[in-house]
Amino acid sequence: MDYKGVKGTRDFYPDEMRVRNWIADAWRRVSLRNGFQEYDSPIFEYLDLFTAKSGQEIAGQLFSFTDRGGRQLAIRPEITPSLARMVNAKINALPRPIKWFSVPRLCRAENPQRGRLREFFQWNIDVIGADTVLADAECIYVAIDALREMGLSAADVCVRIGSRPLTIAALRAAEVPAALTDAALAVLDKRPKLSDEAFSQLAGDAGLTAGQIAAVGRFQDASDMDEIRSYFEGREEVKAHLDDLAELFAALETMGVGDYCTLDLRVVRGLAYYTGVVYEVFDRSQSLRAVAGGGRYDNLLEVLGGPKVGATGFGMGDVVLGLLLAEKGKLPDLSPRIDYFVIESEQSLRPKVLEVVGALRQAGLSADFNYRPQAIGKQLKAANRRGAKMAVIIRADVVSIKDLASGTQQDRALDEFLKSPTGAEHMA
Amino acid sequence: MDYKGVKGTRDFYPDEMRVRNWIADAWRRVSLRNGFQEYDSPIFEYLDLFTAKSGQEIAGQLFSFTDRGGRQLAIRPEITPSLARMVNAKINALPRPIKWFSVPRLCRAENPQRGRLREFFQWNIDVIGADTVLADAECIYVAIDALREMGLSAADVCVRIGSRPLTIAALRAAEVPAALTDAALAVLDKRPKLSDEAFSQLAGDAGLTAGQIAAVGRFQDASDMDEIRSYFEGREEVKAHLDDLAELFAALETMGVGDYCTLDLRVVRGLAYYTGVVYEVFDRSQSLRAVAGGGRYDNLLEVLGGPKVGATGFGMGDVVLGLLLAEKGKLPDLSPRIDYFVIESEQSLRPKVLEVVGALRQAGLSADFNYRPQAIGKQLKAANRRGAKMAVIIRADVVSIKDLASGTQQDRALDEFLKSPTGAEHMA
Repeated sequence: MDYKGVKGTRDFYPDEMRVRNWIADAWRRVSLRNGFQEYDSPIFEYLDLFTAKSGQEIAGQLFSFTDRGGRQLAIRPEITPSLARMVNAKINALPRPIKWFSVPRLCRAENPQRGRLREFFQWNIDVIGADTVLADAECIYVAIDALREMGLSAADVCVRIGSRPLTIAALRAAEVPAALTDAALAVLDKRPKLSDEAFSQLAGDAGLTAGQIAAVGRFQDASDMDEIRSYFEGREEVKAHLDDLAELFAALETMGVGDYCTLDLRVVRGLAYYTGVVYEVFDRSQSLRAVAGGGRYDNLLEVLGGPKVGATGFGMGDVVLGLLLAEKGKLPDLSPRIDYFVIESEQSLRPKVLEVVGALRQAGLSADFNYRPQAIGKQLKAANRRGAKMAVIIRADVVSIKDLASGTQQDRALDEFLKSPTGAEHMA
Repeated sequence: MDYKGVKGTRDFYPDEMRVRNWIADAWRRVSLRNGFQEYDSPIFEYLDLFTAKSGQEIAGQLFSFTDRGGRQLAIRPEITPSLARMVNAKINALPRPIKWFSVPRLCRAENPQRGRLREFFQWNIDVIGADTVLADAECIYVAIDALREMGLSAADVCVRIGSRPLTIAALRAAEVPAALTDAALAVLDKRPKLSDEAFSQLAGDAGLTAGQIAAVGRFQDASDMDEIRSYFEGREEVKAHLDDLAELFAALETMGVGDYCTLDLRVVRGLAYYTGVVYEVFDRSQSLRAVAGGGRYDNLLEVLGGPKVGATGFGMGDVVLGLLLAEKGKLPDLSPRIDYFVIESEQSLRPKVLEVVGALRQAGLSADFNYRPQAIGKQLKAANRRGAKMAVIIRADVVSIKDLASGTQQDRALDEFLKSPTGAEHMA
């Protein structure tokens, strides 16, 4: 019998776990310093929470199952529907704006590819109950704050920012019928991954004329606010969305992260529930999939049975980010370290070893020892292998404390050491 | 449409999330200082990994499903089979003893009850590749170290320690046929929850005679090593197991946690794979289910396709522990705190607010602000509500820094504050 893990899932051995924790710790630290509070939802929910309104992209990627009570359940492929459900359940008790984050484990039944697995972790940042574009700006700021915290500069990554309402206005301006909007958005979302021919073919299949495809293409290729303003010249109904986008870029500049951000109207996002500013984070060379993506979704809470309350946020997965950090050499040395490794100079002193180990740990210090009797030299090797800073060699009533980096050694009375293990020799 | 979470799962709003994190952080801190390294497995595995040899107790509690490739999968109900699979896959590359921990999310398809949910978190501590009872002692020590770290004393909790091989020897001594061993162990495991009559009934159903039930009952009721030694008088084959148990208690005493531990041969454990010392942690009044349980399992790696390598460890769930900590008043104040709340004295200063917030966060400090313009008084209230230590009131080129606990206030030039936000006023 040979048991294996399921393809597209990962085993986190200690080396990989330390990388995962290093990333998740940075996400948490950055979330908290930006004023967000952590929440989490169950790993499985009623199936219909996910199939309700998240769009076909998600619905086709569910691991679903039936429990013994006949209930249709599914493992969460994203956390946003659960977030909306939780907020709706307490909407009147929660002071707004609700600034929450989570680092959920998510599962999607897709074919594993580079940067795309069937199980992954995704940092989620959301602001609910704030209609101002400042909330969108803050979410983008937080994404950048985390990337910067992990050592990625504006030369490494870029936030590409688009607008759902402006894209829809461009479809309207090109006289694409309203009934085709969702299909057109789905095709536009795929455009950056397609050749011009393949895109035209797909857009044609979705019902767009060659003229419409060209017109919307000109809109998407606009590279600054002036170009978009002139594209929509005379269309007053678009002004508020243009002003929002301008305010968003101004706020990001003022907060000191303007160099990470760029206008890119080709960003549309795949999920159906976005209603405002949308964005994706890519490595500058765009050799990898998106590191993060998000935007405003003002209707989701209402669609899931709650009041109409605006919301905005993003998700950042650990898989592509991990590849990028490794590629750019940003992962630090995460070798395990412990404070003390306790060594017996002869086997009869084993009870003293246990006593010292217990005392050190109770004092909050990390300490380890060998289960099996060994020569001092072998125990010292074990101490080095386990990343100990100091070795404590028990010699009856005296202990020798050896700094394993410098090699310096000092003797102390065992009693005295137990009373104050973190003496001067530890500070050295 | 009213969407709800599934019964037996929990929504972690920020208040509950802080409790969960406080517990998980203690588990991690204690694991690391005891020389354990963290690992994790996927949330789902091939179904047969769990059904193989974990005993009926687990097999009946699985959430299983079939993916689109027709593979039979299941959400993990425990992590030990995955641990065994992972260790087996790299058995020759991993230096022993392997001291690993994990804090997995687990799911079991059981009826929700007090202390028993369908989704929970369980701290797992395991030592693989060490046959000495010192490894069992260290696992028990680590469980106690965590309980002590969270404020639970020997008056609050107790580790009840039994022995599978001695229990089996008692069955043999009472002439219970070997074929009935598993059934008899399953019945004995239920004994502490049953009346004498119900237990006798169940044991009789399992094939034990009244005399056998009485004889094994006398063994289980032994309260110290002397009593057990006299129970097995003349049975040399039991000596090694008796010596192990005595050494275990001596080691726990020497490590300073003897007062948390008691001999209790009624502890048998439900899972089929235990082979040595077994134990369960209970609150002293035994008003709650077990807080933790574990023991030695020397055959599991081999059963799952690996070599014969001994292993020992325990699991401690978050649900019963959370109830106990709340009951004993050990949960600290976990209200969220931030360093700075940045306030505008007039709306035109909004860009300065954004600049200051950005600078503080980039310096690694936590800072927040209001999205909407408000009077200073209302902004100060928001600052208090979000747990800010200091309010920074922007007045053109001067900032007033107000300590919200003491009420003291100090003015500084904005430029100077931005250069060194953590000035003396922050240290106060």
